[in-house]
Amino acid sequence: MAKQVSNKQVILKHYVTGYLKESDMVFKNTTIKLDDQKGSNAVILKNLYLSCDSYMRSRMRKLEGSYVESFTPGSPITGYGVAKVLGSGNSNFQKGELVWGMTGWEEYSIVTKATDQTLFKIHDKDVPLSYYTGILGMPGITAYAGFYELCSPKKGETVFVSGASGVVGQLVGQFAKMIGCYVVGSAGSKEKVDLLKSKFGFDEAFNYKEEQDLDAALKRCFPDGIDIYFENVGGKMLDAVLLNMKLHGHIAACGMLSQNNLEQTEGVHNLSCLITKRIRMEGFIVFDYFHLYPKYLEMIIPLIKAGNIVYVEDIAEGLESAPSALVGLFSGRNIGKQVVRVSRE
Amino acid sequence: MAKQVSNKQVILKHYVTGYLKESDMVFKNTTIKLDDQKGSNAVILKNLYLSCDSYMRSRMRKLEGSYVESFTPGSPITGYGVAKVLGSGNSNFQKGELVWGMTGWEEYSIVTKATDQTLFKIHDKDVPLSYYTGILGMPGITAYAGFYELCSPKKGETVFVSGASGVVGQLVGQFAKMIGCYVVGSAGSKEKVDLLKSKFGFDEAFNYKEEQDLDAALKRCFPDGIDIYFENVGGKMLDAVLLNMKLHGHIAACGMLSQNNLEQTEGVHNLSCLITKRIRMEGFIVFDYFHLYPKYLEMIIPLIKAGNIVYVEDIAEGLESAPSALVGLFSGRNIGKQVVRVSRE
Repeated sequence: MAKQVSNKQVILKHYVTGYLKESDMVFKNTTIKLDDQKGSNAVILKNLYLSCDSYMRSRMRKLEGSYVESFTPGSPITGYGVAKVLGSGNSNFQKGELVWGMTGWEEYSIVTKATDQTLFKIHDKDVPLSYYTGILGMPGITAYAGFYELCSPKKGETVFVSGASGVVGQLVGQFAKMIGCYVVGSAGSKEKVDLLKSKFGFDEAFNYKEEQDLDAALKRCFPDGIDIYFENVGGKMLDAVLLNMKLHGHIAACGMLSQNNLEQTEGVHNLSCLITKRIRMEGFIVFDYFHLYPKYLEMIIPLIKAGNIVYVEDIAEGLESAPSALVGLFSGRNIGKQVVRVSRE
Repeated sequence: MAKQVSNKQVILKHYVTGYLKESDMVFKNTTIKLDDQKGSNAVILKNLYLSCDSYMRSRMRKLEGSYVESFTPGSPITGYGVAKVLGSGNSNFQKGELVWGMTGWEEYSIVTKATDQTLFKIHDKDVPLSYYTGILGMPGITAYAGFYELCSPKKGETVFVSGASGVVGQLVGQFAKMIGCYVVGSAGSKEKVDLLKSKFGFDEAFNYKEEQDLDAALKRCFPDGIDIYFENVGGKMLDAVLLNMKLHGHIAACGMLSQNNLEQTEGVHNLSCLITKRIRMEGFIVFDYFHLYPKYLEMIIPLIKAGNIVYVEDIAEGLESAPSALVGLFSGRNIGKQVVRVSRE
């Protein structure tokens, strides 16, 4: 039975240049008709949790030929979230099911082109639902695919993770420890560095903002060099890492967060190290690895339930807090996965 | 029977900064005793051909932890060459044999640590001996290993080769055509560009010095993008290529010649394309692929004998011409493989 309800939205005001500000987004009060969507191919969702992810910044500029589309100024931001199906004309989804995947930054969303690669059904509800924005969602598969598929890790190898206090970094560090690697992470505050060592089991960690010389910091942590670099930041850190890689090392490029807000990116000067050290550097996008999701869940859910993996969330309460939560990501304000709770189920 | 003979040498005067000049090298007249080297592990060589290779520039600066050692100022330059064994205390080499491998820039050299990975015996003499500095030597294996082992080429793919008029580039282009790829090369003069198209069978070629906008030049040649980039130059060209790579493309990094003479290398700004386009970029050094040499010879010698591969040499006459020949490499003066003939057999 259709009913009309209010539907607050977070709208992208315009394409963004420079650092993202809360004022680049604006709230809009709209209404939506909650019906069963029969006769359409659409799914109507009640959004429960929204995920703040760094790749979203890139969608705020005019993109051409990118792997993601630009957001549309004047329309709600979209991103990963956890939601409940309120109605569905799509035979793959049934009313009452819980899903995670692409949804809107609003209270209710109508998703017209849902597939099993854009909306994933949530089967295991013995874990917090918000986890499906992070360790059990896109960032989890990112860490799993990037580390195991691209880095060919082996026991005893040395692993460096930049942006290590993000969900992906935290997970990569823990995966590396599980197989007996020596793991070092970098992050942007003393608090995060302490957490990496005390809570996430990194062997060493450093605050890149406090280091005069990143090359020296890496040499201190890796006197014999780095076998595997899990790249989240790019720029100067990549340059310093290149100088410290071992022969035949692997670099998995997951993100270059330090460059996201820059109009003119920093140049990387030490790429000839790729040659002299015979390094393989490979970029990847999680989309290409969603087929590994069932295999990943098989590994990760028992670890979560047994308390053998640490996962930290930073949950902002209410859609009203979403712009600020997203902006905070780029100043490194959050500790752990930044989530926005739109509604309790 | 030992005899004392004169032995002219090309000496590196000092570590070199900036562009290499002839005056960074100096001639020295010495003498050498030509004996059978019995009781030692050494091999005494009469040098016939010396190879001018761009990697030699990097050995002219103080290197630490590099894949090659610095040259020693005050001593003869070393490099690849073709030579005749005049005497040998090393059971792997016999007097009268022809070899190619690491030797000195001088008339005669004593090689104390020859192995089958540093001196290769020449079995097939039905081809010009000078070819063992190029198509049948280190540059040949470089092209073969870099293209077939790293690029995973397939029929119909689009291939871009920078520094394409060098031996390695010429060969990569021809290998790519043989398997049915579309091939474009860049070079630094109209003459070289014409040769790439008319003689080496490239589908297209352009003079990077004449292009205002490398990105536009690549878009003109590759409207649908580049599957494989064989990297010889680095810097601005790499930046432009990154913008034009196709999804899941491969970059084999063989050299970054444009950066060799720079004290401060150019920064590369578009590395985030590695992520968005899921590109694999891998550096390599020919040393790691010498085991493929017999397999490579099996392929290449019949092609040479049947006239199915084009190979051009630029032979400078006499050791006296060696410094100028080497310097010319970096201004792009030579067309084809730059060789110095020290002596006819």
